[in-house]
Amino acid sequence: MDLNADLGEGFGRWELGDDEALLDVVTSANVACGFHAGDASTMRRSCELAARQGVTVGAQVGYRDLAGFGRRFIEYDLSQLRDEIIYQVGALQALAAVEGTRVRYIKPHGALYHATAHIDAIVDAALATGLPVLCAPGSPLATAAGDAVVPVYAEGFADRAYRADGTLLPRSKAGAIITDQEEVVARALLMVVDQRVIALDGTVLPHAVDSICLHGDTPGAVVLARAIREALHHAEVPLTPFLP
Amino acid sequence: MDLNADLGEGFGRWELGDDEALLDVVTSANVACGFHAGDASTMRRSCELAARQGVTVGAQVGYRDLAGFGRRFIEYDLSQLRDEIIYQVGALQALAAVEGTRVRYIKPHGALYHATAHIDAIVDAALATGLPVLCAPGSPLATAAGDAVVPVYAEGFADRAYRADGTLLPRSKAGAIITDQEEVVARALLMVVDQRVIALDGTVLPHAVDSICLHGDTPGAVVLARAIREALHHAEVPLTPFLP
Amino acid sequence: MDLNADLGEGFGRWELGDDEALLDVVTSANVACGFHAGDASTMRRSCELAARQGVTVGAQVGYRDLAGFGRRFIEYDLSQLRDEIIYQVGALQALAAVEGTRVRYIKPHGALYHATAHIDAIVDAALATGLPVLCAPGSPLATAAGDAVVPVYAEGFADRAYRADGTLLPRSKAGAIITDQEEVVARALLMVVDQRVIALDGTVLPHAVDSICLHGDTPGAVVLARAIREALHHAEVPLTPFLP
Amino acid sequence: MDLNADLGEGFGRWELGDDEALLDVVTSANVACGFHAGDASTMRRSCELAARQGVTVGAQVGYRDLAGFGRRFIEYDLSQLRDEIIYQVGALQALAAVEGTRVRYIKPHGALYHATAHIDAIVDAALATGLPVLCAPGSPLATAAGDAVVPVYAEGFADRAYRADGTLLPRSKAGAIITDQEEVVARALLMVVDQRVIALDGTVLPHAVDSICLHGDTPGAVVLARAIREALHHAEVPLTPFLP
Repeated sequence: MDLNADLGEGFGRWELGDDEALLDVVTSANVACGFHAGDASTMRRSCELAARQGVTVGAQVGYRDLAGFGRRFIEYDLSQLRDEIIYQVGALQALAAVEGTRVRYIKPHGALYHATAHIDAIVDAALATGLPVLCAPGSPLATAAGDAVVPVYAEGFADRAYRADGTLLPRSKAGAIITDQEEVVARALLMVVDQRVIALDGTVLPHAVDSICLHGDTPGAVVLARAIREALHHAEVPLTPFLP
Repeated sequence: MDLNADLGEGFGRWELGDDEALLDVVTSANVACGFHAGDASTMRRSCELAARQGVTVGAQVGYRDLAGFGRRFIEYDLSQLRDEIIYQVGALQALAAVEGTRVRYIKPHGALYHATAHIDAIVDAALATGLPVLCAPGSPLATAAGDAVVPVYAEGFADRAYRADGTLLPRSKAGAIITDQEEVVARALLMVVDQRVIALDGTVLPHAVDSICLHGDTPGAVVLARAIREALHHAEVPLTPFLP
Repeated sequence: MDLNADLGEGFGRWELGDDEALLDVVTSANVACGFHAGDASTMRRSCELAARQGVTVGAQVGYRDLAGFGRRFIEYDLSQLRDEIIYQVGALQALAAVEGTRVRYIKPHGALYHATAHIDAIVDAALATGLPVLCAPGSPLATAAGDAVVPVYAEGFADRAYRADGTLLPRSKAGAIITDQEEVVARALLMVVDQRVIALDGTVLPHAVDSICLHGDTPGAVVLARAIREALHHAEVPLTPFLP
Repeated sequence: MDLNADLGEGFGRWELGDDEALLDVVTSANVACGFHAGDASTMRRSCELAARQGVTVGAQVGYRDLAGFGRRFIEYDLSQLRDEIIYQVGALQALAAVEGTRVRYIKPHGALYHATAHIDAIVDAALATGLPVLCAPGSPLATAAGDAVVPVYAEGFADRAYRADGTLLPRSKAGAIITDQEEVVARALLMVVDQRVIALDGTVLPHAVDSICLHGDTPGAVVLARAIREALHHAEVPLTPFLP
C-alpha cells in the first residue's frame, strides 16, 4: 500500500503544511506545479527531499488560479487546459531531473480533480506525457483514463466523508473533513484491508485503492498521517510507492 | 548563417507579432515560455509551426513579469532565478515533445539578457538542462558560459544601435532601434560577411556571429526579416539553423 | 441615445483596440480595471482621454483572469467576488480622480456579464459603491438590480446575434458576431428608433435601450462605430451620455 | 505614541501573521493592497476589524510582485509606479468605505520602502491622493515628501538593527532582525522616551518618531508587540494613532 500527500503548496513568502515531516511518512508526493500553488524553488526542493527519502514524485496539476488555490471551477477550452497541464508536468520534470529523480504520475488538484467537463484534457495530457493518473476508483476520470489505455491508480481519502454514490462530500459542506484520529485510522484500515468505505448514510461501498491520500494543509495532518502509517504497520501492510 | 526571432510573445487574448510569417523567414525560433509572455497553447502552437517548417526551437526565458514583458530588471535570489529558468525550459520541452520537436538552446529575454548580476543563474540553468546559450558575442554572459564549458552561440542585432564597447544602446534611448530597411540590411551583411559592426561613434568592432536576431514585435518586422533573408541569399550565404 | 465601448483592454506591452479612435465616437467608456485586462497606467490614460472628450467613465469589472480575458466562468464565493468588484471600482475611482473625472457606473465584463450565479455580487458591489449598473434590458441582472433599487441602464448590441429569449448567442457560436456594416447599422437604428431587435429565428423582440454597445477589440470596430454614429446623426437622434 | 503593524498580508488560501491579535495591540494598521500581498476580501476584513477597534487604516503599497512579496527591487517607469500606487490606494479606499472607515496614509512596503530611485513615484502618488506618508525619519523619502509639502510621519523599528548612517541593516544580513524581547522593548523605549536609537557600531543616533513599527509576519510577533505596548503603558506614554 502507498501513502500519498500534497506537497510544495506554498508560494513565495507563503508556506503551507509541513513538507519535511510529511515526506517522512508518505511513499508518494504530489508536488504542486506553480499554477494553483508552488513556485520553482519549492518544487525543486520538494523533489530534492523526495529523492533523498526514496519517495515517488507525481505532478499535482491544477487550474491557473493562485488566488483560488485551484479549488474553484474555471471554464476552459479543453485544448488550452491540456496544454497547461503538459506545461506544468514539463516544468516539474525539468526540476525533478536536476535532483536526480523524475515525475512518475499526474494527480489533478482541487476543482480539476472533480470536473467531469475537463476529464478529456487530463486524459490527453496523460497520453501526451506518457504518465499514469492517480484518482478516485470508479470515478468518471478513472473510467475515461482506462478507456484511453492510460494506466490508472486508485486512491482513497481516509479523512473525507463519502456520499452513497462513492463521491466525496464537497469541502464546503459540514462534516466533509474528518479530523478524529481514531475514525480516520479506522477508515484507512477498512480501505486498505477490506477494500471498502462506509458512506455518510451507512452504505458500505467497495473501494479498492492503491494509495491512501493524506491532506497536508490542515493542522494535525502530520500526526494523522503518522497514525495511519503506524496502524498499517501494525496490520502488517507493507508500505511501498504504488509506482516503484 | 542562422536567422532567429522571438516568437509566441502573446498572452491569452493578446497577440504580438506575426508568428506564422516570421516562421517562414527564420531558421531558429526563440519561444517565450510563459513568465514574461506566452501561454501554454501559444507555446505548443509555436512548436508545431516550427516543427513543420524545420525551424529549430529555443527557450526564450525571462523574469516572472507579465506586466513588464520581462523588460524590467528584477532583483532575484540566484538559485530562485535558476530554478525559474529550468521551470520555463521544462515546460517548453514537454510541449515541444508533443509536437515532435525539442528545445535546443536557451535564449534569455529582455532585462535578463543584459543583467550581469544574473549571469550565474543562466549558466547554472544551462548546465542543469544541458543546453547551449544564444547571446551576444564577447558579452559577460558569453564569457561566463564559456568558462563553465556551456556551448555558446553568438547573435548580432541588425536593427539595434551598438555602443563603442560592443553593447547595445538601451531600447529606451533615441536611435536604439533602426528601422530603415537599407541600413538594417547593410548592417546584417556587414556582420555576416565581414564579421563586423559599426558602433554609434563610428568605431568598427569585430563581431563574429552564428545568427542574426530579428525582432518580431514591431510593425514592419516581417518585411525587414524577409529583406535580410533575401540579401543573404544574394550574397550566397547559406541559411541553416546554428544547431541543425 | 448613448454609445458605449470597452476601452483600456490592453495589458502592459500588449495593446487591444484603438482607444483614441473609439473615444472620438462614443459617449461612454467602459474602462477595464486590471483583473481581466487593463493596467494602472492604461486606466489613467483612458480616464484622461475620456475627460478631455467629455466621455463618461464606467468601471468595466471582471473576473481575476488575465489569461482568459475574463471570458471564462470562474466559480466564486459571492462575498469574495463582491469585494473584488469593489476593489476594481475603487482603483479606477482613484485614477479617474487624478484626471479630474469620476466613475459613473459599473459594467460587468465577459463571463461575469452573463453569470446568473453571480448577480448578487454585482448588485451588492453596486450598492456598496453607490453606482448604477449598465446591462442588457430584461436580463436577470437588470431585474435583480432593479429589485435592490440599484439604478439600471440598458444597452443593446448591434453587432451581436440575439436568441428568441432575448439573450445573446454566445461568442463561441458561429454567427454570434455580426460584421456586415449595413446590417449592424440597421440593427442599431431598429434598437434606437423602434426599440426592437430581431432574433435569429425572426422573432421581433421589444428592446428599449439607453445605449448601444460597440465592441472595440475587433478589426473594423472603429469604422463600424463611426457608421452607427453617423446613421444616428442622420436619423436626428441626439447622442449624449446616458449619465450626463 | 502610535504603534503600527503590517496586516492583511495573506493571499487567498495563504495566511501570514495573526491579524486579529495584532489589531488588539496596534493603533495604526498598514493594510496590504493586493500587489505584493492581500486579496480584496482580506483587505475588507482588515478594515472591518480596524474600524471596530478604532485602529487607523493606512495603505501598505508595494511592487506588483506576489512571488517576491514585494521584497525585491523592480525597475519601474516612474509614472507607471505612481499609477500602480494610486490604483492600490483607491482599491483600499473603496473597501474601507464599505466598512465605515477610510485610508489615512500611505506606507510603502518592502523594497519600495528603501528604493531611492522610486521616491518621486511615492511622493507623486501621495500628492495625487492627498495622503501623508509614513516612513523612516531623516530618510531620503521623508526629505523628498517634505520638500513636496506632503505631510510625513516618522516610524522607528524596535526589532531591526540600524547602521551608523541611520539606515536599517538589510533583512538578508545576520543580526538584522532582533528577536530578544528585553532588547526590543528597551530599544522601543529609547526611541519613544529619549528619541534615540543605538546603531550596530554603538553610535547613538537622534531618532524622533511618531510611531513604532511592529512586524507581524514572524513567530512571536504578537507577544513582542504586547510587551512593547505594556512597557509604554508603564512608562506612562499614552498610545494614540498618529493620525486621530
